[in-house]
Amino acid sequence: MREYNFGSGRPDPLSFPSEGLAEAAARVIADHGSKLVDYPEGKGYLPLREIAAMRFERSERKSLPVEDIALTSGSMQALQLLSEAYVKPGEIIVTESFTYGGSLGLFRRRQARLVGVPMDDHGMIMSELEATLKRLADQGTKPGFIYTIASHQNPTGSIMPVERREQLLEIARRYDVLVVDDHCYGDIIFDMDQAAPTLYTLDDSGTVVYIGSFSKILGPGVRQGYFAAPPSRMNQMLHNKVDGGTNMLASMIVAEYFKDHLWSHLAMVNRVMQERRDTMTASLAEHFGPLGPAVQWSNPPGGLFIWVKVPDDVDIAEAVRLAGSRGVVCPPGRAFSPEDEDVPYLRLAFGYPSVPDIRDGIPILADCVKAASGVRVEA
Amino acid sequence: MREYNFGSGRPDPLSFPSEGLAEAAARVIADHGSKLVDYPEGKGYLPLREIAAMRFERSERKSLPVEDIALTSGSMQALQLLSEAYVKPGEIIVTESFTYGGSLGLFRRRQARLVGVPMDDHGMIMSELEATLKRLADQGTKPGFIYTIASHQNPTGSIMPVERREQLLEIARRYDVLVVDDHCYGDIIFDMDQAAPTLYTLDDSGTVVYIGSFSKILGPGVRQGYFAAPPSRMNQMLHNKVDGGTNMLASMIVAEYFKDHLWSHLAMVNRVMQERRDTMTASLAEHFGPLGPAVQWSNPPGGLFIWVKVPDDVDIAEAVRLAGSRGVVCPPGRAFSPEDEDVPYLRLAFGYPSVPDIRDGIPILADCVKAASGVRVEA
Repeated sequence: MREYNFGSGRPDPLSFPSEGLAEAAARVIADHGSKLVDYPEGKGYLPLREIAAMRFERSERKSLPVEDIALTSGSMQALQLLSEAYVKPGEIIVTESFTYGGSLGLFRRRQARLVGVPMDDHGMIMSELEATLKRLADQGTKPGFIYTIASHQNPTGSIMPVERREQLLEIARRYDVLVVDDHCYGDIIFDMDQAAPTLYTLDDSGTVVYIGSFSKILGPGVRQGYFAAPPSRMNQMLHNKVDGGTNMLASMIVAEYFKDHLWSHLAMVNRVMQERRDTMTASLAEHFGPLGPAVQWSNPPGGLFIWVKVPDDVDIAEAVRLAGSRGVVCPPGRAFSPEDEDVPYLRLAFGYPSVPDIRDGIPILADCVKAASGVRVEA
Repeated sequence: MREYNFGSGRPDPLSFPSEGLAEAAARVIADHGSKLVDYPEGKGYLPLREIAAMRFERSERKSLPVEDIALTSGSMQALQLLSEAYVKPGEIIVTESFTYGGSLGLFRRRQARLVGVPMDDHGMIMSELEATLKRLADQGTKPGFIYTIASHQNPTGSIMPVERREQLLEIARRYDVLVVDDHCYGDIIFDMDQAAPTLYTLDDSGTVVYIGSFSKILGPGVRQGYFAAPPSRMNQMLHNKVDGGTNMLASMIVAEYFKDHLWSHLAMVNRVMQERRDTMTASLAEHFGPLGPAVQWSNPPGGLFIWVKVPDDVDIAEAVRLAGSRGVVCPPGRAFSPEDEDVPYLRLAFGYPSVPDIRDGIPILADCVKAASGVRVEA
């Protein structure tokens, strides 16, 4: 059966730079392979940290010292280190009211209690965040951290404007709470007018830990994420990194490739992703539009996801099951709910499927949503 | 200052197959690079697991299904998964009376209580193991597992004979305790007469988890370890593997290289390592011999380490400090003590230093041991 994979936040296999990466690998292993008899240094292979710093400096117009950067096995390992360093089992993590299911799974594994803060089209609502922190303070408790995907929010696709970011930092400082700024989709942006400086960029008080990734723009199989943290936090976070160091062979190759190709690669990935997004929003307009005004979808200025609101009478689990049986893979809104609530949303990832897969898969998904309408059984 | 690094269990940079690995990398990335847009499968990249199975079958003359093998970020991650799956904080891990400091550090981080079992020249003494398990059973407790480096024990270099292995398994089964068979040095062997089947090979009752590594024969920078576990234990161990999968880019390259070169590479590494061992034992005879009969050292049939007993009146910490100030790096016996006791031993790793480094470094170390003799201050 033909598969229409709208499930996973991955780039497209056809945009993978196999040839360039193969050349880079051959060159760097021939020249520096013998370094692999050493363990990677604690913060990871220096030349790749230098590229992360260079990327940050060019994007954010602010310097980021390499000693404040550590490589991780994907951005997920950075989140794991954060949880272990700053959240005891039973403690609270504050998140957006919908957020990445992988992060939620990791936080739950740490036995954190998850508190979602309502969002609008510009991300987390600051009066709601403040009310949440105040309520917790009144109860004599404080969250381990605030976890936010402020840019290209997963799943909603929103970008938090700079004024709101400043407010977030002010509130976090006032309540003395760490902010985790998950910027792993930050390089995929089509509408530069909406770009905003990262929370890490705006902060000079040591309130923020920043998470980045090379996996989202290359492929998760390279497992090269990183975090930037103020010096006071760096050792606390590295304390639980007992993996013997982030894979140096992979770091070497990614560094050697991106040394010369980071910006051209990003430009190419963004061109491809924008075409996919445009194809998907056009297909949604054609096939979900007729389902009525209760159906809405985001038109994200970047990232990898479109968030689709379906009518309340759609049985989402049934729609997803039906779609799966016809080859269309996408997760239900529930996968993004900190409270594990069954919410009337679907998330569509547009990076991995081809343009024809999008064109042919979206009408099938619309069919399945229709078929699962009005059959919802209330508990 | 010139460095004589006898500290770390690593192969020599000059024996690193940079050229062959560069060719393999270029080939496999060009042909299969686009697979890297996927997450690695849960147990890791299949072709490398197939090589681990093929290696086991040829060495052990027993089949090992690939579905019983999972790749890890070095063998240390396998130990971490074992600790998390089978040892609650405060529970006991039984080890040899001296064992790898990295493993001890990981077990302590899990807040395990460590109980060392006395060894002789053939490894853990079985009557002592039985007495330990009986004592614990009488106290109403049971260890999380027995951790043994049965082949090329680190630090002593011993190989446990097959009869003793059979005894160990019989005792472990009787007391219903899991055995962790750390075989990460298993490929480095000079004296095949002393080779013994692994505990995993001898067991058909699901009592053993086996740990192997490609890092020890290639370099720790590739971070490619693995474990083999009976099906009943595989999912328990993978449950805590939240790293998004073992690095697929590195797995691909190592698999592509070893597909054609595993046995020739092992033969080369073993030739080089044997020359180093011979050089080191000859240097020890020349420079440590004159220190008197209280000084003794192992002549290991494989692995990467020589274990040196020095007279009881040597202040080991002082000897190591003095040596360090003259460029000679080696860990004190204490680093291998489960009870963190100051014991009159040094461990010398012979894989990394060159032959001239060994010849020139050992006399310096002998000087330092002499200088630290008779000055031990009793607590």
